[in-house]
Parts: sequence; C-alpha cells; structure tokens
Amino acid sequence: MANQATAVLPVDQVAIVGLGLIGGSIARGLRAAGYRGRLTGAVASAADAEHALALDLVDAAYDDIAAAVAEARLIVVAVPPGAMAGVLQEIAAAAPHDAVITDTGSSKASVIEAATAAFGGEAVSRFVPGHPIAGTENSGLQAGFATLFTQRRTILTPIAATDPAALATVEQLWRLLGAVVTSMSAAHHDEVLAATSHLPHVLAYALVDTLAGMAERTEIFEYAAGGFADFTRIASSDPTLWRDIVCANRAPLLAAVDAFIDHLQDVRVAIDAADATRLEAIFTRAKTARDDFVLTRENQGQ
Amino acid sequence: MANQATAVLPVDQVAIVGLGLIGGSIARGLRAAGYRGRLTGAVASAADAEHALALDLVDAAYDDIAAAVAEARLIVVAVPPGAMAGVLQEIAAAAPHDAVITDTGSSKASVIEAATAAFGGEAVSRFVPGHPIAGTENSGLQAGFATLFTQRRTILTPIAATDPAALATVEQLWRLLGAVVTSMSAAHHDEVLAATSHLPHVLAYALVDTLAGMAERTEIFEYAAGGFADFTRIASSDPTLWRDIVCANRAPLLAAVDAFIDHLQDVRVAIDAADATRLEAIFTRAKTARDDFVLTRENQGQ
Repeated sequence: MANQATAVLPVDQVAIVGLGLIGGSIARGLRAAGYRGRLTGAVASAADAEHALALDLVDAAYDDIAAAVAEARLIVVAVPPGAMAGVLQEIAAAAPHDAVITDTGSSKASVIEAATAAFGGEAVSRFVPGHPIAGTENSGLQAGFATLFTQRRTILTPIAATDPAALATVEQLWRLLGAVVTSMSAAHHDEVLAATSHLPHVLAYALVDTLAGMAERTEIFEYAAGGFADFTRIASSDPTLWRDIVCANRAPLLAAVDAFIDHLQDVRVAIDAADATRLEAIFTRAKTARDDFVLTRENQGQ
Repeated sequence: MANQATAVLPVDQVAIVGLGLIGGSIARGLRAAGYRGRLTGAVASAADAEHALALDLVDAAYDDIAAAVAEARLIVVAVPPGAMAGVLQEIAAAAPHDAVITDTGSSKASVIEAATAAFGGEAVSRFVPGHPIAGTENSGLQAGFATLFTQRRTILTPIAATDPAALATVEQLWRLLGAVVTSMSAAHHDEVLAATSHLPHVLAYALVDTLAGMAERTEIFEYAAGGFADFTRIASSDPTLWRDIVCANRAPLLAAVDAFIDHLQDVRVAIDAADATRLEAIFTRAKTARDDFVLTRENQGQ
C-alpha cells in the first residue's frame, strides 16, 4: 500500500489547506498524475466541506485545519495572503513535527515572515515558500482544473534555514503537477511579481473603476470592443484576494506603481505635444517587447 | 447585370481605400455577404496591389487612389488617421461628384474637419463619418476576415449637412457586413472611444515599455503569466496606427488619461496606507462593472 501510494510522490498523505482555484487545481492535478496516497482538505465551512467531497476533490474534507493536517506528511497552504499568518499558526500547533509545509502565496517576503513567527527555530526549516505562476480570473471550489500548472513556472524561494530534503519534496510535488520549477530569493520574486502581475491587476481595476465613475458609464461599456474585454479580464479577479495580495506585497508594488506613473506622465507629455516621433518610438519599443514575450512563450509550448 | 450586382447593396461599384485589417475585412465581408458588384481597392504600392489580387480581396487593385475611385458609387476610406486628410483630398479630386464616401477612422471630429476641408460646400453632404468598433492586434493585407464586424457595433457620426440618402447607403453597407449600426455626435463618440479604446492602448503600451526598461527585464517577461498576455495583447497593435489615433483624438484622450492618473493616485494612497477596506471597495466596484460588461456582451451574442 505504501509503495503504491508513494510511487509518484514520496509521502502517503497530502493535506491541502484551501481548495479554491489553486488548492483545487493541486488536488485535481495530483489525482490526474496518479497520486494514490490519502488526500485531505481544509475549507472554510461545513457546507464547503460537503461541496468539496461532492466534487471529489479530496478523500476527506474538514472545516477544521487541525483535523485536516493531523496526519499529513506534506501540507500545502493555498489560502489568500490575508489568512496566511493565522493559518500557519494553526498548522504549527496541529501538524506532525516532521511534516513538510509549503504555500502558494503571491508574495514571499510576507509569507516567510509569517512562517518564521509561526514555526520559529528549527521547525521553519521544513517550510518551503512557493508560488505557482498560474491562475485565471475565477475563484471558488469549482474554479480549479488539473492542468492549471502544466508548463507553467513555479517559483520556490527557500531561505538559508530551509531543509534540502523538504525542498526536494516540494519540487517533486510541482514537477508532478507539470510545472517548471525554479528558485530565487523572496525579495527578487516580490519585485518581479509586483511588475508582471500585481501592477497589471491594479491598473485593470483602476481603469474599470475610472470608467464606471464616468457620466457616460452605460455607453462606455456598450461601445467597448474585444481589446477592452482582454485588457480588463483580470479586473474580474477576486477583490478580497487581490486586496490581500496588494497589501502583502506593498513596498515592491508601490515602487512598480511609481515607475509606471512616471512613464505614463512622459507619454502624456508626448500626447499633449502631439509628438508623433516620440509616441511611435514608445509604442514600437513596447510592441517589440510584447511580441518577443509571446514568441518566447510559444517556443516554450505555453 | 445591374440588378444582380445591386441586390444586396444599391451601388454597382465599391472602392475601398486601404486594404489592411479593416479595409480587407470589409472586402472579404462584402464578398461573403453575396455582393456581386465591382470591388476596387487602393493600396500603398504596386507590390501590395499584386498581393491584394493574389489574396482575391478585390476585382482590381491600384497603387493610385484616383484610379481606384474613378468610377465608384461608394468609397470606403480605411487608412490610418495620419493619412486621412491627404487621402480625402485625393478622393475629392478624382471621385464621381455624386459618389457616397465614408471612413472607418477611430476619431471622428478630426475626420470631419479633414472632410470639410477636402470636400467643402455641398460635396461634404455625401461624406458619412463612420467607425466600426472592431479590431484585433493584427495589421496588413492578410489580417482581415469576413466576420470581423459580425454583431459588432458601427457608430456613424453624421453632421447637419449629411445627405440622408448617403447615410442610408452607408447604414446598408454596415448591416450587410453584420454590424449593429448606431449614431451619435462626433464629440460624444470621441469621448467614449478615448475611454474604452485609446486609453487602454496607451496604458498597455506604457506598461510594457515600463517593464522593458527595468533592470530585470528578461526575468520579468519570463515569469509573466496568462493574465499578463491578455492584459498586454493590445500593446502588440500597430505603433504607427496608434501614434496617429492618439494624435487625432488628443484632447478627449488627455482628459481620459488625467482622470485615470487621478484615480490611480487614489489607489496608490490606499496601497501605501494598507487601507484594505478602501482597496476592497475599489476592486469590488471594478469587478462588478467588468462582470456586468461581459454579461451584457454575452446576452448580445458577442
């Protein structure tokens, strides 16, 4: 039984705390990859636990973190950043002392701070900070799917204290889910994600809210074309989650917002002056960078 | 012959000036809708004329506007805003005095100004300013497709002098292409489009250019996820075209850019203060507006 259970991942029980888009996709992905160990899940309410079982996401679902993690060998924390610190405290109190713990949060410095507070001393060596670079604008128990992480990157941001064996287990988890695993420092991760993910979300929310506040609101949305739908897709993301992410990654995000506002002010000056040469140079540079980005993704089969 | 030619549109020759994404889609759409009259096209070079014929976009292609429009009953001008004034002058000199003329430009006040200068007096009555709200990030002779305008809106912005018969012909053209035709003032059109189209393009270009200028440039694009690809799709649009659009619709666009910067500064203050309540309120309002927009589009079958 143990051999069969651990053939694809060397742990016989995985607990997933939070079964939303990310946690639910991990559960579905593990099953799809042939993981035969026990899968438990922690969710917010008894109704959610029932729903998660009806969706066959896990073998057992609990509205109680302690119950879900009590016998787990690997614990994946997939809760919004705002809930992270409290959840890590609960896990520290209830998890087996040698369980490997990882998370999926979008900002890493804040999670490392919370994990250090929760586990302290030697125990923090078994906490592996992680972040899968994948997502959609959907959320909730039904939002996940088994291939969400396929060919996507997962960034791990181990600290000096991180146990190499724990790191290896978490790397195996993500490879099993089809992800390409890389490592970097938490600070660097937070800067890169502020620029590529958090700033675009803030801009999309700010744009839609600006238009929604205009007098011609109804007509404005009525006459929006396909490009607008693509551009604003991320403004349909979960507001509570993004409130948390923005607060958790505050300093790097503010730096990215300021760099953007500076640049937009430059573009504004060029528009005001009808400086066609400068506008064409900026737009061309941006198009080249964006076309390169798409080409690279396509070459990577993403 | 005339009856068959004019069964779906009461003109026996349509000239399309510019066979890029918009002009090429009009040509393809007319053919797909069963238009059997003569279709001529004007393009920038002899090589493009040969290419347009090889693609079977039109019956005859010319690198000379006068030749393309000489016998046309309906002339559709689908050139970038920067070329519009010059092209309208050439058409005024060469077109039959009773031909109906329309355009597809993204800003209308500037086109009306150029048309008034080109046609003047009574002749401007046969110029019908128009704008199909449709597009992709692609451009060139091969970019068009017959269904680009299907179920999309086309806005006409007639002026007091516009001849009702000319307006009716242009309305028929767009209905034949599957578009939903509406009318409004040029000033109102320009405000609405500045908000829903021109501002998002400026933001997408400015964002990608900001990131491309960062030290971690390579990594930044390497770790960008699906949401980033959607958000920046419009930054792959033709820089020359968008330089022109931005300059042509300068005043309404500047007002939209300023409204956006004001709002983004408010969001920045909320991030800096980690004001979770305010951030959640803004994000929720934006999500609601964007979800409503998507729902409305889906109900309209778009």
